[in-house]
Amino acid sequence: MQIDRLIRAVRDTGNPTALGLDTRIEYVPEKFARPYLEEGGASEAVFAFNAALLNALRDMIPCVKIQAAYYEMLGPSGAVCFERTINEARRLNYVVIADAKRGDIGATAEAYSSAYLRENSPFRADFLTVNPYFGTDGLAPFLADCEKYGGGIFALVKTSNPSGAEFQDLPTGGGKKLYERVAERVADWGEKLIGAEGYSSVGAVVGATYPEQGAKLREHMPRTFFLLPGYGAQGATAERLAACFDRQGGGAIVAASRTLIRAHEKTATGDFVGAARHEAARMRDDISKALRLNK
Amino acid sequence: MQIDRLIRAVRDTGNPTALGLDTRIEYVPEKFARPYLEEGGASEAVFAFNAALLNALRDMIPCVKIQAAYYEMLGPSGAVCFERTINEARRLNYVVIADAKRGDIGATAEAYSSAYLRENSPFRADFLTVNPYFGTDGLAPFLADCEKYGGGIFALVKTSNPSGAEFQDLPTGGGKKLYERVAERVADWGEKLIGAEGYSSVGAVVGATYPEQGAKLREHMPRTFFLLPGYGAQGATAERLAACFDRQGGGAIVAASRTLIRAHEKTATGDFVGAARHEAARMRDDISKALRLNK
Repeated sequence: MQIDRLIRAVRDTGNPTALGLDTRIEYVPEKFARPYLEEGGASEAVFAFNAALLNALRDMIPCVKIQAAYYEMLGPSGAVCFERTINEARRLNYVVIADAKRGDIGATAEAYSSAYLRENSPFRADFLTVNPYFGTDGLAPFLADCEKYGGGIFALVKTSNPSGAEFQDLPTGGGKKLYERVAERVADWGEKLIGAEGYSSVGAVVGATYPEQGAKLREHMPRTFFLLPGYGAQGATAERLAACFDRQGGGAIVAASRTLIRAHEKTATGDFVGAARHEAARMRDDISKALRLNK
Repeated sequence: MQIDRLIRAVRDTGNPTALGLDTRIEYVPEKFARPYLEEGGASEAVFAFNAALLNALRDMIPCVKIQAAYYEMLGPSGAVCFERTINEARRLNYVVIADAKRGDIGATAEAYSSAYLRENSPFRADFLTVNPYFGTDGLAPFLADCEKYGGGIFALVKTSNPSGAEFQDLPTGGGKKLYERVAERVADWGEKLIGAEGYSSVGAVVGATYPEQGAKLREHMPRTFFLLPGYGAQGATAERLAACFDRQGGGAIVAASRTLIRAHEKTATGDFVGAARHEAARMRDDISKALRLNK
């Protein structure tokens, strides 16, 4: 099961960080991009940039989260770039999260699931992020594929953006907000898919920008692994997000994209690989320290 | 504004129907598919099938809804097929809805919006379906592009599937369910984008399988155009969904996919174009009759 592989990969690297490849062509240093742009356009340059980062960071980072939107915006050549980026990450033995936030009625969710979570999926990932708005029958096809092929999903529970609260924090009776109801169902959906390491293949997206809520969710969902976006560019700090981890410092992974892939923009050299490694080490140490204090 | 164009196109054809191209290769008659499969695989056969239907139905049907999932499952060649299908539909002057249910935090929603709703978007559509779970700041980039480029969105309000009620029907205080809160915000988001025909560029997806709720929403959202999935395969009837239209028989469009694109499976000849035309006429008359009785 990929959830066990993810947990072990985090343990092996001592770094609960997912490299977020939300790669816009504007982030790629011009000098690096130029030959690729001439050869094959933006998708070629984005792939070369992604591949360089993936190869350079493998010893430090266990997991990669590839945001589908930034490939979709490039059209069909972006789909090729998305596929190549996934395959390069898999080749390097990263745990791969396709961050696509897909969701639809059952018949259509089945099509999305077959795009990502099966052995012969074109965009074969270990995990897919999904949107829970359709409820149980919209999630069922993903769950069936997780059971059959060993992958996992991360369902949106509490998103990291300021307006997330607009619907997610609405009271729904019994002192529970909408995101807490969603959390309950996410835990239920995952009940039959608990791996050897004690966590389910059905994880939750919990914005690191809401650490109090994250801490409470951590308590109520002891078998649910968290994907925590919001570190860095969105303002979440290691001290605050530590409460989203379990007492052993496990059970969650922090996704960081702009923090890592734009690290070179603060340097004079444009050495994006060196800058990303430097920032990845800083981030790892920052989170490790916070997790030690949280024990 | 595309919302005005949609309303006029429905009026011109006298048919508030969107052809749903949820095309799976299994739906394409084998004999028709064979040469394309040999030439370029499933994506080539799916495109040829879509193009034949689009060309044959243009005089009867004003609008096409293309479900992204069925193209995503084919990988990069599916993205090419999706793009070609959109372009063929635009060439034939259909109003084109990209049914992708996208949604994310603002920075990422902006990337999705640029994939669909701008003048130079690779998958340039007139409308995009979106998921509202992220709230206002997640929707803002789509709204900005609607304002700038004239396209529109349909936000999920009440979905057509049985489990949709699980979260969408939760009480949220003040006697209002979640989908009614979402409906309020959808109406708010659309307030500044009202076209000459009286409807906003910000529409709502309302499952035709819940006609009582649809009728109530119709009353509370007089400026919101409805996209109504669920007719046919999902069990909604014309009599029941008529209440989702306004008193002039406008304000909504019924999406039908399997009903039309699988119509030939009930015939002996495999003439999918003839069967779809026959079924489209039956459906048009079925809805027209129900709308007359509803006046």
